[in-house]
Amino acid sequence: MLTLFHHPMSSASRYIRLLLSEYGVATQLIVEYEWQKRYKFRTVNLAGTIPVLLEGKTPICGASVICEYLDETRGAYKTQSYFFPPNPLGRAEVRRLCEWFLIKLENEIIRHLVRERIYKQEMPKSQGGGAPDSSILRTALSNIQPHMQYLNWLAANRDWLGGSSLSYADFAASATVSILDYMGEIEWTSYPMAHDWYARLKSRPSFRSILADRIRVMAPIAHYADLDF
Amino acid sequence: MLTLFHHPMSSASRYIRLLLSEYGVATQLIVEYEWQKRYKFRTVNLAGTIPVLLEGKTPICGASVICEYLDETRGAYKTQSYFFPPNPLGRAEVRRLCEWFLIKLENEIIRHLVRERIYKQEMPKSQGGGAPDSSILRTALSNIQPHMQYLNWLAANRDWLGGSSLSYADFAASATVSILDYMGEIEWTSYPMAHDWYARLKSRPSFRSILADRIRVMAPIAHYADLDF
Repeated sequence: MLTLFHHPMSSASRYIRLLLSEYGVATQLIVEYEWQKRYKFRTVNLAGTIPVLLEGKTPICGASVICEYLDETRGAYKTQSYFFPPNPLGRAEVRRLCEWFLIKLENEIIRHLVRERIYKQEMPKSQGGGAPDSSILRTALSNIQPHMQYLNWLAANRDWLGGSSLSYADFAASATVSILDYMGEIEWTSYPMAHDWYARLKSRPSFRSILADRIRVMAPIAHYADLDF
Repeated sequence: MLTLFHHPMSSASRYIRLLLSEYGVATQLIVEYEWQKRYKFRTVNLAGTIPVLLEGKTPICGASVICEYLDETRGAYKTQSYFFPPNPLGRAEVRRLCEWFLIKLENEIIRHLVRERIYKQEMPKSQGGGAPDSSILRTALSNIQPHMQYLNWLAANRDWLGGSSLSYADFAASATVSILDYMGEIEWTSYPMAHDWYARLKSRPSFRSILADRIRVMAPIAHYADLDF
């Protein structure tokens, strides 16, 4: 059985959980707190970051690396699921969007919100725990609008984000958006096409475990798990 | 003909130039200064980052996306060059190392050194130009030793960084190392195995254009282009 080191508030981890569920691969989940810098976890992934997937005892580190690995071993060749377009330029566009959401949006918004609002409540003071830094939060929150506008534009101009069919880009984006939505930071009425796209993703069986995620220090917004939001 | 938007002091750009040269693909090079935030370049890559490869008029954005694209269109299927191992776990390890050097090492060292020492000399004051910030430089420089120790360990324990054969990991790492070496920041006597590995890379014909790189505001260290250093 596969093992995934993850955290419920890590968009890259949610992304891999979605893929594993789409491929119907049973996986053992272990919650890892990056900020603890656990020595034993560093022997699994020297970078100390999640997600990490264990295939047997071999670690596969990082969302895009795991995605390519799953595509090669559980994807198109083995199942009915094709989450890459058939042509190289199409795949390049899907990979670009995955990076956009999992790296750019993550670095500009998510990791700051998660650190300031969630991790800092759990961390001891000596490791940086305490009250959130309001100026960091303000900057991160101000980045939401342009990202949501772009998402709305993509959803308005394409059947799915990466083109004419459902792709890894949709899973990467929805994993990221689901964390912003958990925190109640998306004014859905301003982004109607993104809303309809997210509603389609949300109703997939693979999304169920994401919608069941709850963390101790922060409850989700009321509509978080509603398919009709 | 392909076109590459790049900068001589961008490790991700050097990485793609190495691959294009290995594949023998004629490419037009255009120097792009990310900090200028040129509007026309944003229409090519909304993220405003280099490298970007134009295939005809279609942009392919980001080093790892371009690498996968070149592998699919100019790689194993078309030429004698196989820079991915044949098995999925081997490819995962190569991709992990590419991210290690092109993202982690870049974020912890290179981008700070390049910004503080080079870009800031070219930028107008209104955009952040001026004297380098010594505390940022100090932090970045202190990260060199652990990264070089890891590189030395990899070079000591494997034929090539990613395993038993030359792979994308070697090109990603050597592209990054070549910028540190240009700046004279590597004490090669402390890392003998990394030295021998880099000497092998340096002597490949694909490295010639990298070794010919010069920028106006900073001359390279004396041994930079020597194959015997």
